[in-house]
Amino acid sequence: MIIQTTPHCSMPEMEQILQEINKLGYKPARVETQYGSYIVCVGTAEFDIRLLGNLSGVRDIHMVRDQSKLVSRQWKVKSSEISLGPDMVISRNDLTLAMGPCSIENEEQVEDMVAFLKSQGVRLMRGGVFKPRSSPYSFRGLGLEGLKMFYNKCNEAGIFVVTEVMQVSQVAEMYDYVDVFQVGTRNAQNFNLLDELGKVDKPVLLKRGMSSTLDELLASAEYIFSNGNEKIILCERGVRTFERAYRNTLDLNAIPYLKEKSHLPVFSDPSHGIGLRAFVETMSLASLMAGADGLIMEIHRQPERAMSDGQQSLNFDEARRCIRKIRETVKFRKELALLEDL
Amino acid sequence: MIIQTTPHCSMPEMEQILQEINKLGYKPARVETQYGSYIVCVGTAEFDIRLLGNLSGVRDIHMVRDQSKLVSRQWKVKSSEISLGPDMVISRNDLTLAMGPCSIENEEQVEDMVAFLKSQGVRLMRGGVFKPRSSPYSFRGLGLEGLKMFYNKCNEAGIFVVTEVMQVSQVAEMYDYVDVFQVGTRNAQNFNLLDELGKVDKPVLLKRGMSSTLDELLASAEYIFSNGNEKIILCERGVRTFERAYRNTLDLNAIPYLKEKSHLPVFSDPSHGIGLRAFVETMSLASLMAGADGLIMEIHRQPERAMSDGQQSLNFDEARRCIRKIRETVKFRKELALLEDL
Amino acid sequence: MIIQTTPHCSMPEMEQILQEINKLGYKPARVETQYGSYIVCVGTAEFDIRLLGNLSGVRDIHMVRDQSKLVSRQWKVKSSEISLGPDMVISRNDLTLAMGPCSIENEEQVEDMVAFLKSQGVRLMRGGVFKPRSSPYSFRGLGLEGLKMFYNKCNEAGIFVVTEVMQVSQVAEMYDYVDVFQVGTRNAQNFNLLDELGKVDKPVLLKRGMSSTLDELLASAEYIFSNGNEKIILCERGVRTFERAYRNTLDLNAIPYLKEKSHLPVFSDPSHGIGLRAFVETMSLASLMAGADGLIMEIHRQPERAMSDGQQSLNFDEARRCIRKIRETVKFRKELALLEDL
Amino acid sequence: MIIQTTPHCSMPEMEQILQEINKLGYKPARVETQYGSYIVCVGTAEFDIRLLGNLSGVRDIHMVRDQSKLVSRQWKVKSSEISLGPDMVISRNDLTLAMGPCSIENEEQVEDMVAFLKSQGVRLMRGGVFKPRSSPYSFRGLGLEGLKMFYNKCNEAGIFVVTEVMQVSQVAEMYDYVDVFQVGTRNAQNFNLLDELGKVDKPVLLKRGMSSTLDELLASAEYIFSNGNEKIILCERGVRTFERAYRNTLDLNAIPYLKEKSHLPVFSDPSHGIGLRAFVETMSLASLMAGADGLIMEIHRQPERAMSDGQQSLNFDEARRCIRKIRETVKFRKELALLEDL
Repeated sequence: MIIQTTPHCSMPEMEQILQEINKLGYKPARVETQYGSYIVCVGTAEFDIRLLGNLSGVRDIHMVRDQSKLVSRQWKVKSSEISLGPDMVISRNDLTLAMGPCSIENEEQVEDMVAFLKSQGVRLMRGGVFKPRSSPYSFRGLGLEGLKMFYNKCNEAGIFVVTEVMQVSQVAEMYDYVDVFQVGTRNAQNFNLLDELGKVDKPVLLKRGMSSTLDELLASAEYIFSNGNEKIILCERGVRTFERAYRNTLDLNAIPYLKEKSHLPVFSDPSHGIGLRAFVETMSLASLMAGADGLIMEIHRQPERAMSDGQQSLNFDEARRCIRKIRETVKFRKELALLEDL
Repeated sequence: MIIQTTPHCSMPEMEQILQEINKLGYKPARVETQYGSYIVCVGTAEFDIRLLGNLSGVRDIHMVRDQSKLVSRQWKVKSSEISLGPDMVISRNDLTLAMGPCSIENEEQVEDMVAFLKSQGVRLMRGGVFKPRSSPYSFRGLGLEGLKMFYNKCNEAGIFVVTEVMQVSQVAEMYDYVDVFQVGTRNAQNFNLLDELGKVDKPVLLKRGMSSTLDELLASAEYIFSNGNEKIILCERGVRTFERAYRNTLDLNAIPYLKEKSHLPVFSDPSHGIGLRAFVETMSLASLMAGADGLIMEIHRQPERAMSDGQQSLNFDEARRCIRKIRETVKFRKELALLEDL
Repeated sequence: MIIQTTPHCSMPEMEQILQEINKLGYKPARVETQYGSYIVCVGTAEFDIRLLGNLSGVRDIHMVRDQSKLVSRQWKVKSSEISLGPDMVISRNDLTLAMGPCSIENEEQVEDMVAFLKSQGVRLMRGGVFKPRSSPYSFRGLGLEGLKMFYNKCNEAGIFVVTEVMQVSQVAEMYDYVDVFQVGTRNAQNFNLLDELGKVDKPVLLKRGMSSTLDELLASAEYIFSNGNEKIILCERGVRTFERAYRNTLDLNAIPYLKEKSHLPVFSDPSHGIGLRAFVETMSLASLMAGADGLIMEIHRQPERAMSDGQQSLNFDEARRCIRKIRETVKFRKELALLEDL
Repeated sequence: MIIQTTPHCSMPEMEQILQEINKLGYKPARVETQYGSYIVCVGTAEFDIRLLGNLSGVRDIHMVRDQSKLVSRQWKVKSSEISLGPDMVISRNDLTLAMGPCSIENEEQVEDMVAFLKSQGVRLMRGGVFKPRSSPYSFRGLGLEGLKMFYNKCNEAGIFVVTEVMQVSQVAEMYDYVDVFQVGTRNAQNFNLLDELGKVDKPVLLKRGMSSTLDELLASAEYIFSNGNEKIILCERGVRTFERAYRNTLDLNAIPYLKEKSHLPVFSDPSHGIGLRAFVETMSLASLMAGADGLIMEIHRQPERAMSDGQQSLNFDEARRCIRKIRETVKFRKELALLEDL
């Protein structure tokens, strides 16, 4: 159950609401976000909903049977929209493209990429400065200094930055140089990090854990939301399977399922989802027809020289062709949706 | 290595070829199919290819490093086409739709379905008469008598039949009443059955094993081909993963991968691939953008009363809408391909 | 629900029982095995059990909530015993050892193995003559003639034979030359084969499917039992996981679980379960402490020259040492069980 | 390649060594631990090992082909021993038992547990104060204050404490109240946390990630070691599989494999490994025969009232019986090892 409280709910009103909830045998958790005040109540007892609904300070009550409450569509019919700026909104109404290298490597690389993205009308650049690598001896990213350079170059050009955060203390350090925090697959259940990201007012792109179920993904999103941050993007990036022909198995089933189950925008990451450059374009288009609200893709001016993930990065020519097809496909799926209403 | 021999290769010529192959340390396997004569040679020694190429009786030689040889694209650049009749060809040039109920239940059901498919221009009907069920007490299909009825009704209406064969002895029994033999996921590595299907001249729709790798799927196809039957359709139908929200995880990565690796047509089964009626349409369209050459889908006049798989079957209204979108998407992807050439 | 009927239950008595079952809304399935007559009833209605219990011809009634009925321990408290001869019984009271090569290769190999097994007091020899191989070009076994030779050599020496059957028509062909039919992991859900094996009076060693759940394994055993054959041995042989360091992951959790859930004997196959010779001994001892009633293991006089599975076969010296440790461990686990009663 | 340097290796000596390494095309990483100084060199070039071996300051050189170097047995034949106190050493020579509740709940619970463990001669107590829970609304542990109470009670009684650390900042906070830091399955690839734990001088019990390969586990251990902490215990705790009958699938193959591959002690966690109280004892004994150097097990005075994991916790009576059997089995496996030498 979720209780939305009124914006000006007074202390005594709140006390009374909590008292009633406890009396009914429910365990209440208060949540304040950028957009509203909620009490999430966990319990099972049956009762007359008017008992609570008529209390002063209560705006609305929703019965939510889903395990994850605040991210569930059961109480919020309208899909969430996340604004990065006056003219840049992530939502289900349009496609968001986030592109860039796996790792930020140097200034020149960023400049080339920024120029390329501008030429293509892509507004969001991805790029890692803290890299989770299975071996401690691999390149682990340029760190905070790299981020500052990356952010400044983008900012000048009107491009937004999405980059991975790996631990609690980085959240504050990175805050000024990030437009969207990315949580990687290995941190999808790093609950302390999720808690921390719930306390900031910047969007979080939350990738699915390598072997996570979608319920676990939604529970991770619930951590962020219940700590106060409603700006969450879910991202399918492939799961581990027995198949060895490709790095991961992009689970496109997840896209329509998550869109029905949750009100959050849902992205796809075809680069990690298949991990083979030759097939990334195809899987990006398949993602769109599965309903993806955004794509996050790796591109590199010289994939064969990339410091990481070169085997799955498109070069500029490939990216250009792919973007054109993506735009056509987005147009097509809109027409197809209109067709339905005829 | 694959050696194509000439159609009229004489006994002594063949003897000499085999002798040379053995001398080189390769193990030869002779294969006669509907369309050609091959010698598949397994071995690793390096040698001057002209040693064999100049022998009388040899048409062509191809070095194939792939584990599965005859189904590999390394020797056959042109994609395979499978003709069911003068005006019905399964190929990469167009989309093949196979639709129908999970199980054939009775005459009336078949008649309704045939009428529906005709009205929609769908030429291939699926329907099971031998059903693999995990419990021995479940409905296991109408058997051979059901098949005859099913086939006759379809045949009168000019509709082709695809149905599952479960064991060796059924191949001969079913032969006259089947246009395409289907091998189900549980029999994907039933090698005796694959051998037997290699000996008939009807196409085989080979589903991927529930937890098979694509190399295993191709090796299963190689069984059929190396026994003499080139008419093989590969079919992705979802793999088992940890996700419990849907029955299987449709692995659309498999589609572009198999199309590059093999010359065989590649189908997708979105019905089993997600197992939830509400999402089957979406996954059928995503399959198309991933490059599927055909779709096999479960539809039922009354899904809620189906004797099996009702939860993933579309009713006629849903199927009609879905077919319309499929047709639009096929048209779109052709346009998109043209775009590339500009 | 399982109804045991009396041995002399008359036709009219049976009719009346079935009538009552139908009236209660249950679906009855009659089962005649070597040891008894049963009616398996699938349904959910609540009713007074005396309604059926007092009917003439009924010996006993058991409510079985498990999905698989006849193999469930819910109705049969005493564990099943399977006799191969007057002095050779497979049961939970002692350990059964089945050893031998992956493939039967030639007479001399069988003779050496028989001599070795006799010297070690091992009474059951494994060896494949029909080999399921992922590639059609691999060695596929000596076939029926090989089996006859294998069986005759063993029979003379008082050794029993367990070997894999791969398809329905082989059951009759092999019948005279087999003491225990083995169903391999790829055929664990080959339902026609299971049906057929239910109709013979020889034991079946049923291996778990490569990615099967235990419920699926038990359902496969139910196929055999419900067709008339109670002599079933369940066998854990490792499941597919993401781990690439070994061939399979031996799931020893399965041993105590299956022993509690079912009354059938439960074997372990440490050779396939880890697939690495150096660790087979350790995993055989771990299997014993997990409660395995039998072990099936690959040994070969010259593993490095074996035509298949050499990498997981013990040589005679290793096998000798391993058998000694197995015997000690069996003794130890009996003492440990006694300890419990003090 | 690992180069051990002499304890008094001077700056100029070190410079020269590094110079030579770079010249050979290797990438060196310097590592200082509690016990030694190493240079880990990543590269592939062939060269005469004496080129480096004869340099002043070099103690020894080892070619290590394993991906993870410092934790590999390829350079360190003698197994690692980890001392917690003068009379408490974790090693391959004896069995270490760590027992206690899933969560620390209150003082009385800790006192009861301490008394129980003392009576049983168990010297290491487990108990969580920071609990990773999939839902943000579940009980998340008593936190730092709980840890202090837990540690003080244990310390007074001469019992050591092992407890889970979830993020970087907790390492310093918890340091004074922890004898062994535990890294949970969800943090097995939290590389920042691993880095941090490499900087302290207390042992780390590293659990395998839920779907990690053993190479990934060893790479995570390499993170800790290469940051300066050699005191690492590897722990198998079950992997995710398709089996739904139990929480996880305890992968006992991992035990002998890790013991051969690495010089670190290897523990098993049968409680999480099967997740069902009735089978924990059996799986603890199977773990011992697989070669586990230690067991970590959940016990609770009243499992049915536990705040978490009650379904897999043994009560005191069960634990007492289990400990007795564990001790007998440890004795037995020593005898069995002696047998080998006869």
